[in-house]
Amino acid sequence: MIKKKIFNDPVYGFITIPSGVIFDIINHPWFQRLTRIRQLGLTYLVYPGAIHTRFQHTLGALHLMSEAIDTLRSKGHDISDAEKEAACIAILMHDIGHGPFSHALEHLLAGDLSHEHLSAFIMKRLGSQYGDVMNEAVKIFKNEHPKKFLHSLVSSQLDVDRLDYLNRDSFFTGVSEGVISSDRIIKMLEISNGDLAVEEKGIYSVEKFIIARRLMYWQVYLHKTVISAEMLLVKIISRAKELALRGAALFSTPAMSGFLYHEYTLNDFENNPDLLEQFVLLDDSDILASVKVWCSHQDKTLAYLCKSLINRNLYKIRLNYNEFDSETVRNLLVRSSEIYQIEPEDAHYYAFTGSIENNAYSSSSEKIKILYKNGEVKDIASASDNLNISVLSDPIKKYYLCAFEPVLSKRDLSYSN
Amino acid sequence: MIKKKIFNDPVYGFITIPSGVIFDIINHPWFQRLTRIRQLGLTYLVYPGAIHTRFQHTLGALHLMSEAIDTLRSKGHDISDAEKEAACIAILMHDIGHGPFSHALEHLLAGDLSHEHLSAFIMKRLGSQYGDVMNEAVKIFKNEHPKKFLHSLVSSQLDVDRLDYLNRDSFFTGVSEGVISSDRIIKMLEISNGDLAVEEKGIYSVEKFIIARRLMYWQVYLHKTVISAEMLLVKIISRAKELALRGAALFSTPAMSGFLYHEYTLNDFENNPDLLEQFVLLDDSDILASVKVWCSHQDKTLAYLCKSLINRNLYKIRLNYNEFDSETVRNLLVRSSEIYQIEPEDAHYYAFTGSIENNAYSSSSEKIKILYKNGEVKDIASASDNLNISVLSDPIKKYYLCAFEPVLSKRDLSYSN
Amino acid sequence: MIKKKIFNDPVYGFITIPSGVIFDIINHPWFQRLTRIRQLGLTYLVYPGAIHTRFQHTLGALHLMSEAIDTLRSKGHDISDAEKEAACIAILMHDIGHGPFSHALEHLLAGDLSHEHLSAFIMKRLGSQYGDVMNEAVKIFKNEHPKKFLHSLVSSQLDVDRLDYLNRDSFFTGVSEGVISSDRIIKMLEISNGDLAVEEKGIYSVEKFIIARRLMYWQVYLHKTVISAEMLLVKIISRAKELALRGAALFSTPAMSGFLYHEYTLNDFENNPDLLEQFVLLDDSDILASVKVWCSHQDKTLAYLCKSLINRNLYKIRLNYNEFDSETVRNLLVRSSEIYQIEPEDAHYYAFTGSIENNAYSSSSEKIKILYKNGEVKDIASASDNLNISVLSDPIKKYYLCAFEPVLSKRDLSYSN
Amino acid sequence: MIKKKIFNDPVYGFITIPSGVIFDIINHPWFQRLTRIRQLGLTYLVYPGAIHTRFQHTLGALHLMSEAIDTLRSKGHDISDAEKEAACIAILMHDIGHGPFSHALEHLLAGDLSHEHLSAFIMKRLGSQYGDVMNEAVKIFKNEHPKKFLHSLVSSQLDVDRLDYLNRDSFFTGVSEGVISSDRIIKMLEISNGDLAVEEKGIYSVEKFIIARRLMYWQVYLHKTVISAEMLLVKIISRAKELALRGAALFSTPAMSGFLYHEYTLNDFENNPDLLEQFVLLDDSDILASVKVWCSHQDKTLAYLCKSLINRNLYKIRLNYNEFDSETVRNLLVRSSEIYQIEPEDAHYYAFTGSIENNAYSSSSEKIKILYKNGEVKDIASASDNLNISVLSDPIKKYYLCAFEPVLSKRDLSYSN
Repeated sequence: MIKKKIFNDPVYGFITIPSGVIFDIINHPWFQRLTRIRQLGLTYLVYPGAIHTRFQHTLGALHLMSEAIDTLRSKGHDISDAEKEAACIAILMHDIGHGPFSHALEHLLAGDLSHEHLSAFIMKRLGSQYGDVMNEAVKIFKNEHPKKFLHSLVSSQLDVDRLDYLNRDSFFTGVSEGVISSDRIIKMLEISNGDLAVEEKGIYSVEKFIIARRLMYWQVYLHKTVISAEMLLVKIISRAKELALRGAALFSTPAMSGFLYHEYTLNDFENNPDLLEQFVLLDDSDILASVKVWCSHQDKTLAYLCKSLINRNLYKIRLNYNEFDSETVRNLLVRSSEIYQIEPEDAHYYAFTGSIENNAYSSSSEKIKILYKNGEVKDIASASDNLNISVLSDPIKKYYLCAFEPVLSKRDLSYSN
Repeated sequence: MIKKKIFNDPVYGFITIPSGVIFDIINHPWFQRLTRIRQLGLTYLVYPGAIHTRFQHTLGALHLMSEAIDTLRSKGHDISDAEKEAACIAILMHDIGHGPFSHALEHLLAGDLSHEHLSAFIMKRLGSQYGDVMNEAVKIFKNEHPKKFLHSLVSSQLDVDRLDYLNRDSFFTGVSEGVISSDRIIKMLEISNGDLAVEEKGIYSVEKFIIARRLMYWQVYLHKTVISAEMLLVKIISRAKELALRGAALFSTPAMSGFLYHEYTLNDFENNPDLLEQFVLLDDSDILASVKVWCSHQDKTLAYLCKSLINRNLYKIRLNYNEFDSETVRNLLVRSSEIYQIEPEDAHYYAFTGSIENNAYSSSSEKIKILYKNGEVKDIASASDNLNISVLSDPIKKYYLCAFEPVLSKRDLSYSN
Repeated sequence: MIKKKIFNDPVYGFITIPSGVIFDIINHPWFQRLTRIRQLGLTYLVYPGAIHTRFQHTLGALHLMSEAIDTLRSKGHDISDAEKEAACIAILMHDIGHGPFSHALEHLLAGDLSHEHLSAFIMKRLGSQYGDVMNEAVKIFKNEHPKKFLHSLVSSQLDVDRLDYLNRDSFFTGVSEGVISSDRIIKMLEISNGDLAVEEKGIYSVEKFIIARRLMYWQVYLHKTVISAEMLLVKIISRAKELALRGAALFSTPAMSGFLYHEYTLNDFENNPDLLEQFVLLDDSDILASVKVWCSHQDKTLAYLCKSLINRNLYKIRLNYNEFDSETVRNLLVRSSEIYQIEPEDAHYYAFTGSIENNAYSSSSEKIKILYKNGEVKDIASASDNLNISVLSDPIKKYYLCAFEPVLSKRDLSYSN
Repeated sequence: MIKKKIFNDPVYGFITIPSGVIFDIINHPWFQRLTRIRQLGLTYLVYPGAIHTRFQHTLGALHLMSEAIDTLRSKGHDISDAEKEAACIAILMHDIGHGPFSHALEHLLAGDLSHEHLSAFIMKRLGSQYGDVMNEAVKIFKNEHPKKFLHSLVSSQLDVDRLDYLNRDSFFTGVSEGVISSDRIIKMLEISNGDLAVEEKGIYSVEKFIIARRLMYWQVYLHKTVISAEMLLVKIISRAKELALRGAALFSTPAMSGFLYHEYTLNDFENNPDLLEQFVLLDDSDILASVKVWCSHQDKTLAYLCKSLINRNLYKIRLNYNEFDSETVRNLLVRSSEIYQIEPEDAHYYAFTGSIENNAYSSSSEKIKILYKNGEVKDIASASDNLNISVLSDPIKKYYLCAFEPVLSKRDLSYSN
């Protein structure tokens, strides 16, 4: 009796783990850590259901990878069991370098330490444990594998990562706008001259996918209250780090403490293997537990920001197509420092401006290819007669202005569209 | 104990019938007839699940109407119980004039007898039975009611008719592209200066609705095999009528016989109340039962067309952005008459050309209005920064060429895009 | 490029047709006929959504068969491609002998002509066309194949037929009580000593399946209004046949006419191949089109019954745990003949009694087997500690009493439970 | 323009907040705390999707309460707006006293401090803030309100709490066995002699509800791996508290520290209002952040247990219908102390026994009442002819035996059912 490990998944029903090595990787503590990191950070403050984890998303992407490869095999393309396993591991690894509340985390870590660097460190470390198959996975990940379509499945404008997160984020937020036909798109996958493509009759599903992604950006990922919450956490972490580097005492877990009190560089991670061991201990609970304690910190600004987050008293936020003029911003800073009786150099924790941007389809990245019955291949942007993809691929940029309620009064409403 | 009649509905779960009069109308034989007329005609030959009836759609639209009015009331707008009942009846009546396989039916009836004329006759006849409330319903239907938004709910670019059919057709075909957030759109409905509008934060749902409608057109309503099947039935009915008017004997039900052997005009319906009584006896079974019998009719053409439909040997169909050149069409006609050994004047039953067209949003009809927090109202076409609605509202026209397989050979593939 | 034919299905999303031969069978006119036969007959008069066809059900069962075999293969059991194809064809054939409105049909056909006989005739006829694979399918169907578990998948207390129809009937009626975890049950299938079994951890899903089936019986299949509608059609067909055999003129399609005016026996079918050719022309439209015409037949009883069905003026029906006493029934007959001014010998068309019965799990049929980790196998009835399966497997019998409204008055309510 | 606050909910689509006071309570920091407490504790280690929060469940129960009251009103029962608001607040409050990981928490708090006591303290404190409506809510909660059915909706064998958690836990775990027709049950609610009842035709839905609840117990709530994980956290907290009371240094947040280092009694909470202020700061992050730090605590047992949880190396667990004999348990304790080289008095952290029990319907509690058309009322246990409810209401007790893998070896498998 061959046993297959199966997970229940609210989105797809069941997810079958394709091999024993893959199951071992899933059980590795560094991977289990993803069960404690929410996929969408603080989005649950707007959409209470959005509490799904990076672990769930990664299992979902694994499931779609497995289905995609089975589809391609059923159409006569040769993909060995070892190649399938490597592709599955590559997708499992694609988010392994993420930490809790990714935007906030960047402000905890030093400037030159990207999420990609951390993934690379982790895969290298796991490579020594899992051997060849992990090395093949890394090749796919880095687009160094001869079967280029395997990399496209892991990372492209129509990869299983996007297919899963659109479905999953829609499902958990309850925003049905983002639901896509991942099933149909996968059934329509093909290979043309070694490149991943979509059969002609899948064209409407691809269009729908691009539209859905764009709408999810505005409705969820760049929802103004979500941005307000994320910026509040960014400001909290920045303030905490500022205080720590000045030598102030701050409650936190030992793992997080190290990163608060030091500015570790890429170099430090390379020279000191223990740093990665510390990093992989971090999850949402370290941040949340600390923020709650800091609500009664003696630094007025840190305490105010933390209480604002915990009690859901977020920044008011205005959106605008043009940059806010510097006079407006200066006024908000001045009023903030008066109302909260703080030093002018700390006012930027209470009021600030910034920008967000969204493009649904990038004409400059690797294109989504449509394969016609006669063998011709077209970029979806020119194949589609329904959508003006060139319009969709223009990035739309918006500027935001954040401040707490008494400072950002009704009269500032005039800035909002 | 006040009893409410409830229907189970696979799409919405439960549909509560708002009043006793409405329940009586639903039970009227003329309305029950809709339980025997499929919403999407022969679409089930492509999407086997698409066998839902006009009865189900009408109940669904009734449900959404009831929810829409409750939402508007909860936002402080005054709508009396009598007005709600009239609006519900208006939506119940909106499809009452439909017959079986609507396109084919038009060829059974005389040219000047539209679906709208038949609806008008039926409502007038029922008006004498149900009195004032039916008259109010007719006013709403004809946009003669002072509360114009009630008419907009029945018939506009964002009416409950479209909201229901997109959801329902998606559900039964299994084409998830068409799923829309009717729930969210309804919760966002508002009234501004007496006009129906959607609150600002419902803008993404409206965009999604327009896109979904457009995609459903290509994926389902204008799917090339669906068109091929519908055109086959149109040709069958045309041929049968041609034979009947020439005096040939044709099996059919008495109700259908009347329409086969006569060319009744609008005038005839007005002068002869019995004609309407005949019309309301027609449903899908009259057509299907006849077509099956005609498979062995002595007229070679009628028999061949009927067998083609029943055995699902449909026309091959080519689509093109430009008109097919007359030479190509002429060749197909000639080859058809040779292969099937028929008279040249009958060849048009075997090969023909035509066009279809689709526009997702019409800038010339009543606009979909977005209501901003500051009271401003904008057309969705200018409010949306996600979609180039002007592109969407350009109608896209395609030409089709139909013929049976031996005639429309592989080399004609060059016409297809 | 190997092409696989895919159907959209509202229940499972997509159904992939496993082979070209299977696709050919699906396109055979005798199979296409199932697109015009509703799975649940007149149930749509109670649940408007229940208009799905036997075609859809059969495709669904095919899908589950394909998944079940893939699961068993993935657990190391050897099933050849030819065996898989034969099992798939066996399930395609399981309902091929059905006609329109199965209960009514039995009264149209002669007494010794069962649905099973017709299936056998059809398979034999198709066997000559499709050869070996059809013969293997027949072996599986008749439990003459050495791999007995293949027959169990086609026909047993846990076959793919039941798994599909419970899911599908729940889906289309909107009665969520019947939803079962067919996905999970299939993933838990195993083979033990050549017999089909379910892994230990699937036990709750099997319990749920038995319960769901029982509840669907009461809520849908034996819903009292559904029975009333079905009995009305039975009475209509019986009356029509009675009149036909007496020589009366009756509108109907040629195919149906043959069966109305003759009492064909099993023997006739064997000796006259044309009879089967007539039978496979029958579908729901023949019955419905005729019933509508008979509404104005000169036989008062036939016309009354037909109008009652078309106008949804069904029999009132009472249910009781005990048989209705003969006095009560006699009174209803007498009152019916008075009120409707008909001959006493025709009164049984207006008032009658009968019984229905339901058992969720039969202890006497082939058991559902649970396979434990230690290799032990138990009948679900003894394995379950949640349900008293012995209670569930007691058939429950109820008696019904039908008559039209003026005859079955309020005071008869005392009989109802 | 009256504004209603709406939440997106993946289970019900939208949840409308019925009044401003209710929205204020939802935004209270003590209520927002529920956004950081998972409904099913560590169940996500078995069902990765089960990460939904008590906040989501409470909003869901609020939604059902609102629908239930609207249904009862539509059937002619008089329920004032103030009564509706109070009932809604009562259901919002029903889980307010819960802390993180409820089973573990009981071991952190002193013995006489139940979840009910904490709820009572919190409601009293909030009562002073929200006035009359909170006092009315408390009356409903304590069954001191004259309209007894309002209490039944909050707390009985068919309350909105159970209706929501069955649906929600099924949805997020992906275990479709637990899906119930809450919609249908609510539409069937009635009042008979002041008591909550279900209309006769809702009987199958109630049966399904009882079955679903029982199956969810075995499949999810008492799943053996879930119990194993929960017991591991109980043992961790017990060990930490044991060490703390002995004076050992233990990392933790200040709020949690207070409860680790003291044995506060009910009396302490009454005399010291600050204790409640500390309690309402606790959520899942305090526990998880501490457990991760304790992985490197110098106490070998605490560190081992914590690493076992974080690395998902849970106790092996055996289930049995009879108590495990004391000899078996003693052997496991001895082997544990040898293998882990720990003092015998600490062995109970490594191996132990206990019991779990489940009854789906209690005949001794307030019955679920079925109301017949003739006005008669029956207990579901006697009304149901489908289920032997007396069997269902027998509690089923199982004994478990937990130990880590090297200690609980394969040969112990013989104990398993």
